[in-house]
Amino acid sequence: RINGDRLWDSLMEMAKIGPGVAGGNNRQTLTDEDAEGRALFQKWCEDAGCSMGLDQMGNMFAHRAGTDPDALPVYVGSHLDTQPTGGKYDGVLGVLGGLEIIRTLNDLGIKTKHPIVATNWTNEEGTRYAPAMLSSGVFAGMHTQDWAYDREDAEGKKFGDELQRIGWRGDEEVGARKMHAFFELHIEQGPILEAEGKDIGVVTHGQGLSWTQITVTGKDAHTGSTPMPMRKNAGLAMARILEKVDEIAWSHAPHAVGAAGHIDVYPNSRNVIPGKVVFTVDFRSPELDVITDMENRLRVAAEDIADEMGLQIEFEKVGGFDPVKFDEGCVAAVRDAAERLGYSHTDIISGAGHDACWINRVAPTAMVMCPCVDGLSHNEAEEISKDWAAAGADVLFHAVVETAEI
Amino acid sequence: RINGDRLWDSLMEMAKIGPGVAGGNNRQTLTDEDAEGRALFQKWCEDAGCSMGLDQMGNMFAHRAGTDPDALPVYVGSHLDTQPTGGKYDGVLGVLGGLEIIRTLNDLGIKTKHPIVATNWTNEEGTRYAPAMLSSGVFAGMHTQDWAYDREDAEGKKFGDELQRIGWRGDEEVGARKMHAFFELHIEQGPILEAEGKDIGVVTHGQGLSWTQITVTGKDAHTGSTPMPMRKNAGLAMARILEKVDEIAWSHAPHAVGAAGHIDVYPNSRNVIPGKVVFTVDFRSPELDVITDMENRLRVAAEDIADEMGLQIEFEKVGGFDPVKFDEGCVAAVRDAAERLGYSHTDIISGAGHDACWINRVAPTAMVMCPCVDGLSHNEAEEISKDWAAAGADVLFHAVVETAEI
Ligand SMILES: NC(=O)NCCC(=O)O
Ligand SMILES: NC(=O)NCCC(=O)O
Repeated sequence: RINGDRLWDSLMEMAKIGPGVAGGNNRQTLTDEDAEGRALFQKWCEDAGCSMGLDQMGNMFAHRAGTDPDALPVYVGSHLDTQPTGGKYDGVLGVLGGLEIIRTLNDLGIKTKHPIVATNWTNEEGTRYAPAMLSSGVFAGMHTQDWAYDREDAEGKKFGDELQRIGWRGDEEVGARKMHAFFELHIEQGPILEAEGKDIGVVTHGQGLSWTQITVTGKDAHTGSTPMPMRKNAGLAMARILEKVDEIAWSHAPHAVGAAGHIDVYPNSRNVIPGKVVFTVDFRSPELDVITDMENRLRVAAEDIADEMGLQIEFEKVGGFDPVKFDEGCVAAVRDAAERLGYSHTDIISGAGHDACWINRVAPTAMVMCPCVDGLSHNEAEEISKDWAAAGADVLFHAVVETAEI
Repeated sequence: RINGDRLWDSLMEMAKIGPGVAGGNNRQTLTDEDAEGRALFQKWCEDAGCSMGLDQMGNMFAHRAGTDPDALPVYVGSHLDTQPTGGKYDGVLGVLGGLEIIRTLNDLGIKTKHPIVATNWTNEEGTRYAPAMLSSGVFAGMHTQDWAYDREDAEGKKFGDELQRIGWRGDEEVGARKMHAFFELHIEQGPILEAEGKDIGVVTHGQGLSWTQITVTGKDAHTGSTPMPMRKNAGLAMARILEKVDEIAWSHAPHAVGAAGHIDVYPNSRNVIPGKVVFTVDFRSPELDVITDMENRLRVAAEDIADEMGLQIEFEKVGGFDPVKFDEGCVAAVRDAAERLGYSHTDIISGAGHDACWINRVAPTAMVMCPCVDGLSHNEAEEISKDWAAAGADVLFHAVVETAEI
């Protein structure tokens, strides 16, 4: 069994870096706080006898040697970056869970045949730089590194420049590492496990995602002196499109979800009819057909709305991945570990995207989930219990050690 | 006749301060650019032999002496501040029109019985600090100075502190000046004069305005893993309310307009269901009953939307003024001047709010309007012709001199 107190203490220690305004965290990717969190993780890994690798996307790899020099490592990890108003566990549990495995193996004096590598993937959240899971995506060959480096945040700062600025751009070629397997522990971020009273979610699949950034262009004009028929109100078009997003998602519920989290209105002045609105629609489903249907219907509906109002509209796909089926062997290792340890468990589909979704394309991959209170995540009030964290890390430990072979 | 070339040159010179990104201006109130614009205006006024008064709201008063020591001054002016993506004429024409009157009187060696005071009112636009016409409002006793000083911009900077910082907080008590009359020249900001081919709008009335800031509070949550029925999507509620705003305004058109120019979504992250949205609804009508009806219906509709969705909603009135009827004597002076000078003219209701709307409460007041291309304002592409500007300033000159008596 892993040491649940130590894991919890590390979670609380990490949460001190980049505190939020309401008990959670604001440790967004490539900020000074991100750099500070990385340094703490590196220190802990080195204290646990690991050597740290760093690739050109800032992905961190803490290496614990195996006994067979020819055996590929088993990777285990998640991400340390958070949402602007994020929780203390989303991502962090998976990274520190990986570290906890190594610490436990050290305590027990266990050597594994395959090396074990605890990993922190850069910019999983996708808040500051779309898309989400950017660096595991480059690792898996889904994006080029140049394209990733050119991604801009809301202030126009480039990913590559910011990575350099915080001092966490490594030399290692991205994706050069070969993996025996990859495991990721994550909080569920949804309500199912808690509702069903299960300790562990054995993640068999991941939902697919589509992010479409929509730009509606009308005409800035005076809210008082512009007659109603002369208006080209991009804000009103956005409102109508948001209603469609909701309607389309509901038409496929419970097999789909949809919303817009990002909305920027220009020039955002009380007495100026918005001349431009930029917003991102997030559609998800475990079924690729459903995602495609939602994308198509939204496009037609949004174009109709813009046409009727005499506005311009542009669509840009700023993120997306197909539904994922995780590796059966790795999934079985997770399920068997839960069973063996006596934890209640259920198979589950991940509603969120995870680095594991990309890594699954280049290595046998599976995920372990633990419940979170009220299914709440991407909220500073995100909460889990120490027992839930420990159970998740226990299952992770056994699945990883089983796969890494003693 | 005033000197149309000189007026135009001054407009172009002022437009160099705080240039926009598309040919217009971004010289928002109490910024460094505002300070620079004020300094230029002061220099020009002093060159024209005026002494400059400055009150505790930063209102500027360039004084040209009259011949009768007991006669109250005739005030003439508008504002130098602009929208973030504003035009070169909105407000500026009225301030520099006032200066042009003084320059013309100097050229012609004319002395008036009443002094003439060219005025720049602080923060007319209301973009950075709601409400609009803040400082003419304090002058007219509609707001207390303390309340005005406490107004905060989007970054939490207070009006009083920023006024001090840019160095334009005067000692003079606000509203202590007594006026014989006040005249304001302004571009129409709407399409009527151009459509009717009129040189001059004789402004008899001003529309009333109501600004309601609405805060909808839901719950930040993950866009992927939160099932549709569990969502408390404040962004979706905002969308539904915006549709109502439009519907309600149309129900009274052409006697009303409505829109929301200001919308802030929190935390504004692509994969977070908005937990909070703050936006401002702008309703206007020349009829007070209509404004009240729109406010009431919106409140009921918005509360219903929030209730149905299980969200919290709050309303704060952040700006408002009743419809205005300008002084008959001053209006007649404007109409007579246009007639005498041979300009085509029509009576008009101002669609926008103006400092004149507040000053009308404490002094006999009227406004002169000139057309603007396509009725477009609050847009960097706002445009007028040199002839339109000159015609407006000519009428202003004659109305002011008539009232100030030779
Ligand atoms: N797990 C998680 O919140 N990832 C962010 C990417 C997504 O939006 O699903
Ligand atoms: N004239 C003008 O644009 N004033 C700003 C206040 C308003 O919104 O009407």
